[in-house]
Amino acid sequence: MSLKHYRELFKRVQSRELSVDEAVAEMRTGAFDDIDFAKIDHRRTLQQGFPEVVYCEGKAPQQSAEIVWRLVKHGDGNILATRVDEQTYEAIRARVPDAQYHSVARLVTILRGERVQLGCVAVVSAGTSDIPVAEEAALTAETMGSRVTRIYDAGVAGLHRLLARLDDIRAAEVVVVVAGMEGALASVVGGLVAAPVIAVPTSIGYGANFGGLSALLSMLNSCSSGVTVVNIDNGFGAGYTAAVINRRIATFGQS
Amino acid sequence: MSLKHYRELFKRVQSRELSVDEAVAEMRTGAFDDIDFAKIDHRRTLQQGFPEVVYCEGKAPQQSAEIVWRLVKHGDGNILATRVDEQTYEAIRARVPDAQYHSVARLVTILRGERVQLGCVAVVSAGTSDIPVAEEAALTAETMGSRVTRIYDAGVAGLHRLLARLDDIRAAEVVVVVAGMEGALASVVGGLVAAPVIAVPTSIGYGANFGGLSALLSMLNSCSSGVTVVNIDNGFGAGYTAAVINRRIATFGQS
Amino acid sequence: MSLKHYRELFKRVQSRELSVDEAVAEMRTGAFDDIDFAKIDHRRTLQQGFPEVVYCEGKAPQQSAEIVWRLVKHGDGNILATRVDEQTYEAIRARVPDAQYHSVARLVTILRGERVQLGCVAVVSAGTSDIPVAEEAALTAETMGSRVTRIYDAGVAGLHRLLARLDDIRAAEVVVVVAGMEGALASVVGGLVAAPVIAVPTSIGYGANFGGLSALLSMLNSCSSGVTVVNIDNGFGAGYTAAVINRRIATFGQS
Amino acid sequence: MSLKHYRELFKRVQSRELSVDEAVAEMRTGAFDDIDFAKIDHRRTLQQGFPEVVYCEGKAPQQSAEIVWRLVKHGDGNILATRVDEQTYEAIRARVPDAQYHSVARLVTILRGERVQLGCVAVVSAGTSDIPVAEEAALTAETMGSRVTRIYDAGVAGLHRLLARLDDIRAAEVVVVVAGMEGALASVVGGLVAAPVIAVPTSIGYGANFGGLSALLSMLNSCSSGVTVVNIDNGFGAGYTAAVINRRIATFGQS
Amino acid sequence: MSLKHYRELFKRVQSRELSVDEAVAEMRTGAFDDIDFAKIDHRRTLQQGFPEVVYCEGKAPQQSAEIVWRLVKHGDGNILATRVDEQTYEAIRARVPDAQYHSVARLVTILRGERVQLGCVAVVSAGTSDIPVAEEAALTAETMGSRVTRIYDAGVAGLHRLLARLDDIRAAEVVVVVAGMEGALASVVGGLVAAPVIAVPTSIGYGANFGGLSALLSMLNSCSSGVTVVNIDNGFGAGYTAAVINRRIATFGQS
Amino acid sequence: MSLKHYRELFKRVQSRELSVDEAVAEMRTGAFDDIDFAKIDHRRTLQQGFPEVVYCEGKAPQQSAEIVWRLVKHGDGNILATRVDEQTYEAIRARVPDAQYHSVARLVTILRGERVQLGCVAVVSAGTSDIPVAEEAALTAETMGSRVTRIYDAGVAGLHRLLARLDDIRAAEVVVVVAGMEGALASVVGGLVAAPVIAVPTSIGYGANFGGLSALLSMLNSCSSGVTVVNIDNGFGAGYTAAVINRRIATFGQS
Amino acid sequence: MSLKHYRELFKRVQSRELSVDEAVAEMRTGAFDDIDFAKIDHRRTLQQGFPEVVYCEGKAPQQSAEIVWRLVKHGDGNILATRVDEQTYEAIRARVPDAQYHSVARLVTILRGERVQLGCVAVVSAGTSDIPVAEEAALTAETMGSRVTRIYDAGVAGLHRLLARLDDIRAAEVVVVVAGMEGALASVVGGLVAAPVIAVPTSIGYGANFGGLSALLSMLNSCSSGVTVVNIDNGFGAGYTAAVINRRIATFGQS
Amino acid sequence: MSLKHYRELFKRVQSRELSVDEAVAEMRTGAFDDIDFAKIDHRRTLQQGFPEVVYCEGKAPQQSAEIVWRLVKHGDGNILATRVDEQTYEAIRARVPDAQYHSVARLVTILRGERVQLGCVAVVSAGTSDIPVAEEAALTAETMGSRVTRIYDAGVAGLHRLLARLDDIRAAEVVVVVAGMEGALASVVGGLVAAPVIAVPTSIGYGANFGGLSALLSMLNSCSSGVTVVNIDNGFGAGYTAAVINRRIATFGQS
Repeated sequence: MSLKHYRELFKRVQSRELSVDEAVAEMRTGAFDDIDFAKIDHRRTLQQGFPEVVYCEGKAPQQSAEIVWRLVKHGDGNILATRVDEQTYEAIRARVPDAQYHSVARLVTILRGERVQLGCVAVVSAGTSDIPVAEEAALTAETMGSRVTRIYDAGVAGLHRLLARLDDIRAAEVVVVVAGMEGALASVVGGLVAAPVIAVPTSIGYGANFGGLSALLSMLNSCSSGVTVVNIDNGFGAGYTAAVINRRIATFGQS
Repeated sequence: MSLKHYRELFKRVQSRELSVDEAVAEMRTGAFDDIDFAKIDHRRTLQQGFPEVVYCEGKAPQQSAEIVWRLVKHGDGNILATRVDEQTYEAIRARVPDAQYHSVARLVTILRGERVQLGCVAVVSAGTSDIPVAEEAALTAETMGSRVTRIYDAGVAGLHRLLARLDDIRAAEVVVVVAGMEGALASVVGGLVAAPVIAVPTSIGYGANFGGLSALLSMLNSCSSGVTVVNIDNGFGAGYTAAVINRRIATFGQS
Repeated sequence: MSLKHYRELFKRVQSRELSVDEAVAEMRTGAFDDIDFAKIDHRRTLQQGFPEVVYCEGKAPQQSAEIVWRLVKHGDGNILATRVDEQTYEAIRARVPDAQYHSVARLVTILRGERVQLGCVAVVSAGTSDIPVAEEAALTAETMGSRVTRIYDAGVAGLHRLLARLDDIRAAEVVVVVAGMEGALASVVGGLVAAPVIAVPTSIGYGANFGGLSALLSMLNSCSSGVTVVNIDNGFGAGYTAAVINRRIATFGQS
Repeated sequence: MSLKHYRELFKRVQSRELSVDEAVAEMRTGAFDDIDFAKIDHRRTLQQGFPEVVYCEGKAPQQSAEIVWRLVKHGDGNILATRVDEQTYEAIRARVPDAQYHSVARLVTILRGERVQLGCVAVVSAGTSDIPVAEEAALTAETMGSRVTRIYDAGVAGLHRLLARLDDIRAAEVVVVVAGMEGALASVVGGLVAAPVIAVPTSIGYGANFGGLSALLSMLNSCSSGVTVVNIDNGFGAGYTAAVINRRIATFGQS
Repeated sequence: MSLKHYRELFKRVQSRELSVDEAVAEMRTGAFDDIDFAKIDHRRTLQQGFPEVVYCEGKAPQQSAEIVWRLVKHGDGNILATRVDEQTYEAIRARVPDAQYHSVARLVTILRGERVQLGCVAVVSAGTSDIPVAEEAALTAETMGSRVTRIYDAGVAGLHRLLARLDDIRAAEVVVVVAGMEGALASVVGGLVAAPVIAVPTSIGYGANFGGLSALLSMLNSCSSGVTVVNIDNGFGAGYTAAVINRRIATFGQS
Repeated sequence: MSLKHYRELFKRVQSRELSVDEAVAEMRTGAFDDIDFAKIDHRRTLQQGFPEVVYCEGKAPQQSAEIVWRLVKHGDGNILATRVDEQTYEAIRARVPDAQYHSVARLVTILRGERVQLGCVAVVSAGTSDIPVAEEAALTAETMGSRVTRIYDAGVAGLHRLLARLDDIRAAEVVVVVAGMEGALASVVGGLVAAPVIAVPTSIGYGANFGGLSALLSMLNSCSSGVTVVNIDNGFGAGYTAAVINRRIATFGQS
Repeated sequence: MSLKHYRELFKRVQSRELSVDEAVAEMRTGAFDDIDFAKIDHRRTLQQGFPEVVYCEGKAPQQSAEIVWRLVKHGDGNILATRVDEQTYEAIRARVPDAQYHSVARLVTILRGERVQLGCVAVVSAGTSDIPVAEEAALTAETMGSRVTRIYDAGVAGLHRLLARLDDIRAAEVVVVVAGMEGALASVVGGLVAAPVIAVPTSIGYGANFGGLSALLSMLNSCSSGVTVVNIDNGFGAGYTAAVINRRIATFGQS
Repeated sequence: MSLKHYRELFKRVQSRELSVDEAVAEMRTGAFDDIDFAKIDHRRTLQQGFPEVVYCEGKAPQQSAEIVWRLVKHGDGNILATRVDEQTYEAIRARVPDAQYHSVARLVTILRGERVQLGCVAVVSAGTSDIPVAEEAALTAETMGSRVTRIYDAGVAGLHRLLARLDDIRAAEVVVVVAGMEGALASVVGGLVAAPVIAVPTSIGYGANFGGLSALLSMLNSCSSGVTVVNIDNGFGAGYTAAVINRRIATFGQS
């Protein structure tokens, strides 16, 4: 869809390498795989350096499996499915036997691409209950080629637990902070590091937590600069963005 | 209204020290001063060890002044008026010349009682913009007889500023934490001290701060135990409660 | 982490009592127990006079049991686990046979420390349905060494039920008020006593109660001074803070 | 629009007392006065025993004045205009010289009907700042023929002020309770009287009051039965309904 | 608690008819029955002309049954239990065999008092799904002695269904309107009748209904005067208040 | 209820074709079928060109079946029942054997009327998980005589999937856009077409989606003109309105 | 951007009518006018049959005037500017002398195109205070070529005012309903007409109106089918969509 | 505060290079400048590569000026003050004459450091009214050493305006998207680029925009991966984070 892309297409039409109908057809059909309930995007690896991720919540197990299978068949990179329950995993494994299930994070990964080793992401979480979301972030970043340092149960109620690991956190290129309840950890970490901080509010808590609203608002209002926020419980989004930044760093010298 | 109080009244009636009509009248009129727009409570000093505080917002300046004057006339303790604008202060000073105005905290104090020196309250605030609320807390506690240590602009974005004053904070009997934005300071302080922490969310911030909601929810969901919360911008309430606890501590041995 | 603590450490290093590596190691490892999914805090008893409380919601039963067991093994004081369901209790009891389960309050207590008898906490609740939260507050305060007076089902719809127990409430050092629906009880009690009042909104109610929001806002906006608030259904937090205040009172003469 | 009304109309058409066109015209035009910006309702006195009340907020002063003047010209009862600012009052007085302005309640009354004396309404308010709303309720009920007992500044923070006036409150046929902040007064009064209680939340307060939301939710969740609620600051609505109930009582024997 | 009550008590003390201890005891114990988990109020029939209603949600079946049984044993009037599930009903029936269960409305009634026949309440509901709440209102009002006219499924989407029953609605002393979704029915009925209208928002609906919030706000903002509102799904509260008004009407001539 | 209708009735009364009682009766009873729990509206086909749709959520299966059966018996057009679960469908089929169940959309259709072929509706949906709501819209529009083009899984994260189908979308008379999460698809489509766009927010998403609130607010604030919005998950409402517009278009030349 | 458009472009490139650079340039620059602070869209008239509407709120007067002037200069159709204050109007008039200001609706119209007369839009509003929003809708529809019938102050509190105008409302192709407070008018009108109803909630009201939220939720939850909703106070959006539907109807036979 | 820092300190103490008192003093005083109302942080440049940014809202002009002046005096890098009104700017300029004011973005910049040229940030905004926030982001990133490409008024209502600039956007290392209303631009851009996208919701809009809530929720729920979000109107936060990422990229090869 870029002007470059169009220019090329125009040239091939002008040179009669392509007929008008072929050019129109290419615009229409070259880019995705249209099945009954989904349009599977194959231009994504090219464009963003990573295949489409499959979000399985709200899809029937067979729908998820079909989409994953088509992505596998078409491409040759790593594949990631999120919010996968047991039943959906079974449906995927029936079609893609080497699919791996990470039950705590509810992720399925299929590793086909060559493994790169980009920069490091530190995933810091506040409490034991936040681990599933933290693992979703960590595994996503790993699948996308980043190294990950995990620092769990380091909430601000016992600040020394965090400070003891500060050198590890400061060694990372990007920091993901996962916290529920009041989400104060994002601000505290944000004040201590020079790296970009991606904050993930979790729905852990009760009462005036309102399903993660307290941590979400807390992180959006962080008094520390350099903190950006993703949706409640969206460990995937944080891990993905962290990996995108790391890829950016790794490819900067080359472009 | 306590059973003790009634018992005494019954005895005086039984002994004819008091007629039935006098007893009923005492119940009805002994306790407050009924003027056109207010019922001024004189039983409060006796009952709670401190005169009624006058909340001036939403009252006409002359109404506030009238109420303050009646409290002064009737009692002999310290008096506190909150949310006082310039105009209301002028109206009060016209009737009570020794009324003092604290413009940052928007308080008026009238010091008539003997000055006691109870335990210490540490008032910790996150940012320069939170100072008016912090001062409201500090001056309230002082007027009620507590010593106050002020630690301002100690927000978590620069944690070393807080840690450097930790010994001062730990020396207090009660800690008041005043913070807007994400209010993370309450949890951090709560994790570092053994004293009760009273958290005051402020409306400082913008956007998803929603008038102080972010700090309020943050503080209510604090992962640190021992933290209780008052209304947004309610510096008075925090200072008052801190002083009440200190008074409790001071009188414990005596009762 | 206090300056005193550092001064001591510096002195021991200066005097070669400690090598630099030992000093750094002590800072890092002396303070907590780092297992896979949790960092268990052992500096807390020293610092706050009470062991870390284990919040079990959102943790697997085996995780909760492991944490409790390590706290037991390490310390010699009383231990408290909150939001414990039946299954988690079974896992705890398998490792710590003398763990006691309080099913209404969903608490587990393990009493190993010597029993102190500090001041009194009055726990006042509005309705029969509020009792689980009230019991969580009462048992927490008792486990931490306070005496507790229970006054249940004393809501404002039948005010005489409250007034009849007023002398008992006034005899307490701290008052915890537990109420759902409109939470008016906190303001009424706050107007009748001289002690600090800790208000616990509950999620009891329906419709425009919005999961406890009505009682929460009501208590935060209390027209009575001296009322502070904890999270919805957070009986533990109220009982804990009440006990902290009582401990403060008890230790004041000594420090 | 009732079946009775239609029956009568059919009869007059059947008996040729009315032509079909006249019958249709009466349905269309007999019931209101259609001016440029308003349709003034003259069937209301007949139907509800009271003229249409003019709500002036959001209307230009001249629009309000025009509507009031047409109501006066057409009817012979009492007229009430609410939310009237100074400027609108001037516009009304220019056209209806005997219009009276009640500046605290922001009401205009025009008394033309004979004065009836129905049952009594007790208007109880929590604080001095609630008086404008309370006066709006009281004056509305008086204009509609009820007697009114005013009990102001009787909030629950000083319960004895309320209890001292309990006999007066219990003497009323209907009780209106006006309160801001946490609105606890409605529940307390509701538990003490046998009359219907109409609760008016006010926007008095700050912070987590959220413009009257706290008192509104509090009153909707009242643990006392027999309490119904009107909109925030809607003193008019409460006074109107109280008067409607009183009228109902007065006319019951007659119908 | 009224002054009259105290005057009488003082007189009996003065005349030595009562000792001081007896007087104090009467104040304390005469008014309610204190069991482990509840304080059952027996002064209510006297004070409000109706026994305490038992709200069963959040209570154990045995607790509800115990409370109902004590009320039955002590008094001789009608008794009402609300939000009763099947299991609780069984527990009640085991102790009070003549308890009747109304499963749609989830009410239990025990009719012991003489049956009075006060004025009429019209209960108008918008849709078939609102019937459980409407029945709660209707049965409550009937148990308290009112006659009830039911007009169900008369929502504004088919206005002629409502208008066809207008004469029946206008014949009632009080009108209860029950509606979910947008709750427009309350305003439409409020514009058509001269009686007080009690509006009950229901949680019927989905999406932006937010559990009844849409109907609740709609009813609070009704453009028709004379409409008051109760909590979402609170059919009981509406029926109770309607009956209270009818009782008021019936007793007006007598007092 | 229109003036035309009344004029006709008056004429028939005047000409004695109808007695007064018959006229009143016709107004009362001609228009709907009054059963115990519902008033079934038969004037609707005449008035709006389509029978009443039955919303089954919150109704007992037998109630839904009874209403459907009466509609079938009375009329001769197509019938639609929405939010139908399996059990309710069984109850309907028992009485109306040719009822068809569409399980994804949870609709029942009964096709009795002649099939018209009005203009085209394009139903565009963002993700696979939005298909149930999209199908509800599509089937509703089809049952009401519109042709439907389905374009599913065309969310803005892969814009080329949408642009490839743009000509199909532009060929429709009305466009329905179904999207959850951030609902951006409505604005994008609204900027690309000249037809009216009806946007349906879905509850698909998690966290700060708040049950569809994010998509709802997004669509209401669309920067594209010509976009109107229905309730969250209200596929029926969108399909219905699209069909109404198509019918309008089809009948315009004729009226 | 449609495939048709691209096909044509490819052809002209293939036939050398256009060079590749010209083709790319056309894609880039042919479609809008890029000035410092805005990209003015000239493809809109072609695509949607109406020029870009200028939303002036938040723009400096000179910015708005510049944009309007460029639209005038470039095109030859009618132009509409919304949310125009006095000062902005002066800036526009200085550059486009025949710009007309409609102060109640805060619109500027510049009529240059030939005047078409499409179908009719009925704009029905609830109260006098809603007229500015209703006029915004009416004038927008008129500027876009629709005839408009205005029925103002026809709220449901006096239903006969609405019913008297029912024939006029039923004569329209599209109905716009404008209402604040509880917004019940939309449901009532929706139940009475066969045309599509576009509902505009207004911010008229106070208290629990929450800036128009009550009317918004009410309209989204309408029990009448065929009702769609636009943003609060968005008279423009409703008038625009109504005109789009009318244009659709008018051009249907032709395409 | 890191372990490295402590290790070094311990070594200098051990080697008697530093006395214990000096070591403690350094921990306490070396890190910030403690003035009456603020603690100015000088360790920040070292730690995060950029001086503390001064947020001026809620501070008195003299306070802001004092803080800026101290930062200037102490350091030698660039300085940034945000949310600066005219009056505050005058106060700053009086003390720092080379301070530059950017009135649209309400920023003050003081450029003292050497100018680096890091990677590129694309700042894309939806409408003209969003420019102040976009400029805050752009100028912040520039002050911190990034190059900035501005693409303004490219909202999704006219998608071709955005697509025409796609190559420029794709050339950036980081993309900042600024949008109010429904904020759809973030998702559309997120689907088109491989760079990390930082989304800034603005408060531009009205009605159900609720002060920026619609755009905020929209962006948090983005269906495009790689999008993170900052607070409403927080252009500074986005620009700051973008610059932090660019700095990370630039320094990656070196560390």
